[in-house]
Amino acid sequence: MQNFKLSLPTEIFFGKGQIKVLGEQVKRHGGTRVLVCYGSGRVKQQGIYDAVTTKLTGKEIPFHELGGIAPNPRITSIREGVRLVKEHGIDFIVAIGGGSVLDCAKGIAAGARYDGDPWDLYTKKGEIRSALPLGMVLTLAATGSEMNGTSVVTNLETKQKLAIRLPFLKPRFSVLDPTYTFTVPPDQTACGTVDIMSHAYEQYFSTVPGTFLSDRLGEAVLKTCLHYGPVALKEPENYEARANLLWAATIGLNELLTYGKTGDWATHMIGHGVAAHYDVTHGVGLAILFPHWMNFVLDERSLDKFHALARNLWGVPISMEPMEAAREGIARTRQFFTELGMPARLREVDVAEEMLPTIAKTAVEFGAVGVYRKLGEAEVLEILRKAW
Amino acid sequence: MQNFKLSLPTEIFFGKGQIKVLGEQVKRHGGTRVLVCYGSGRVKQQGIYDAVTTKLTGKEIPFHELGGIAPNPRITSIREGVRLVKEHGIDFIVAIGGGSVLDCAKGIAAGARYDGDPWDLYTKKGEIRSALPLGMVLTLAATGSEMNGTSVVTNLETKQKLAIRLPFLKPRFSVLDPTYTFTVPPDQTACGTVDIMSHAYEQYFSTVPGTFLSDRLGEAVLKTCLHYGPVALKEPENYEARANLLWAATIGLNELLTYGKTGDWATHMIGHGVAAHYDVTHGVGLAILFPHWMNFVLDERSLDKFHALARNLWGVPISMEPMEAAREGIARTRQFFTELGMPARLREVDVAEEMLPTIAKTAVEFGAVGVYRKLGEAEVLEILRKAW
Repeated sequence: MQNFKLSLPTEIFFGKGQIKVLGEQVKRHGGTRVLVCYGSGRVKQQGIYDAVTTKLTGKEIPFHELGGIAPNPRITSIREGVRLVKEHGIDFIVAIGGGSVLDCAKGIAAGARYDGDPWDLYTKKGEIRSALPLGMVLTLAATGSEMNGTSVVTNLETKQKLAIRLPFLKPRFSVLDPTYTFTVPPDQTACGTVDIMSHAYEQYFSTVPGTFLSDRLGEAVLKTCLHYGPVALKEPENYEARANLLWAATIGLNELLTYGKTGDWATHMIGHGVAAHYDVTHGVGLAILFPHWMNFVLDERSLDKFHALARNLWGVPISMEPMEAAREGIARTRQFFTELGMPARLREVDVAEEMLPTIAKTAVEFGAVGVYRKLGEAEVLEILRKAW
Repeated sequence: MQNFKLSLPTEIFFGKGQIKVLGEQVKRHGGTRVLVCYGSGRVKQQGIYDAVTTKLTGKEIPFHELGGIAPNPRITSIREGVRLVKEHGIDFIVAIGGGSVLDCAKGIAAGARYDGDPWDLYTKKGEIRSALPLGMVLTLAATGSEMNGTSVVTNLETKQKLAIRLPFLKPRFSVLDPTYTFTVPPDQTACGTVDIMSHAYEQYFSTVPGTFLSDRLGEAVLKTCLHYGPVALKEPENYEARANLLWAATIGLNELLTYGKTGDWATHMIGHGVAAHYDVTHGVGLAILFPHWMNFVLDERSLDKFHALARNLWGVPISMEPMEAAREGIARTRQFFTELGMPARLREVDVAEEMLPTIAKTAVEFGAVGVYRKLGEAEVLEILRKAW
């Protein structure tokens, strides 16, 4: 187990009706002029946008807005947001949406404290020491962005999908109302479930020894996805399922599962490589890639972890020979993703075979990926070919 | 799943050598004159006291000290601490020790902001709205006091053991160095393991439906205790075992396992009843009482939870009939406590049979205890008789 510092400053208001705290929380954190960020029309149709703005006007907090933020959010949205912030003297950002909107809002909060192009922050050309304070209203169980300091953004011009991770980008507060996820369509519910699971997997597959408790916490998140993912698909307004998935998403990437270890994250890097060239939903890319990554890295060295996962998560019998059990666990992972309606091959989402070398190059542009097994361009390409 | 607010302001510095941050952290939180609280001589012998005071003097922070704080800390120590704080104009408290020292330090931090007798705060006669800031250096994996706002204190005159829970008593930071627990003697290691498990149990047995993820997180903590408790007893300097137990103790009672549910806590209340009349170590009392409480509340209504625990924690086969499996799980709990060297009967720790009615009365002095099954004086007495 490695040394670590735990710092979880984000306050979470979880449950039905928690939007009631929004106005007072913005005020408490010094917000006097707000930028409200959102994506699709769903937040307007479902009344979430109105609920938020009513709470702001109720506390006489003026606001401007930036709508239409796309999935796999673009640096162009961040540039536009930063322009609005500087033009209107905005001092607090409220994001309504899933991970994409939240990540975009973080980019704006960061860019507001930087004089150059905000993309510099993602390429590490520029640096900041603080950001505007943020509050989040979550509408999708998936990325965990509501309690972490990570922002992942796509630049369509340069064909890059890059991340920043800064402690001061952790939201001051997040409102998590499971009923706000009732109208998430089936494909997004499935993608969100895969995303939560993939975060747990990335952190599970660490080479740091002695992370027993961490591993068991990760299994708790994974079991929750197995249990409730299919329920939420069948009964979209099942509060228990939506609540557990929402809570699992937050725990899945608020650092709790990473304390004391170093996650792998190779599959995410390969997925970012795909997303930089194709507009493939994050969860879809991960559902395709993860089982292939697993099969690629399964060997004698990694056997213990895969075997533990097969037994604790998939209930593979103790009598089964470890390597066979590990393979069975991977097969069950693939089968579960399929049951959620996820494609199994890159060709199914229109990735061209001749683009695989380019995708591999993009995935490793900052060096070999993964810690569980270091993957260079050749290895990544091999995984991509198997996944194609 | 109930609505909840998550607020985890305490920063944790976990791992070997983390004491290095102490001086700068005290300064960061505004400490200019410190009260150092500690208990036994172990912290002096092992050099932890010196490590702390060196860090303070290194930052030119003057300090006073209060040593000799006893297990099951007394209100008299808190009164003495408050006197020192007021006499010397102290503005920050550093506690070195296990839960008893930490709980005492919290009482002092609270009492410093109250004009009357600090015991008033525990009997709810008095109220405060703030407390002195606190930093903790942990030397025992057990109570979770290092990341929560709870202080449990004994008044030997009134024969009461009472708790306060206030959000502003959460420490600003805690230093968790597993090597500081290497010299914890076997009986205290065993008691600490039982204490961690009992916290997980109290929160596991909630009547709130749909707390799947929470329950699985609780099982992760419990599995960690089963796995490493015996290891730490056999190999006291096994870093991996000590680190996982320390981390389990913190997670076990930092609110994470309670978000979305209401814990039971009847067994703790009965244990406090025992401790008010006898100087029985907290973990010993819990090890005796928990299996008896479990047998008492096991019925058709509670069967699902007990069955899940039997299967997920103790690996009782799925083929076993649920009620039988539940009883087997309880028997294994008892057996595990025995393997840790814990007594099984109140008579073994010199509790007199004729005192049981008095203990029962003390346990319910503020009303029936528990939510899993509400227990009045008669029911508590029945459990005590079975445990005697």
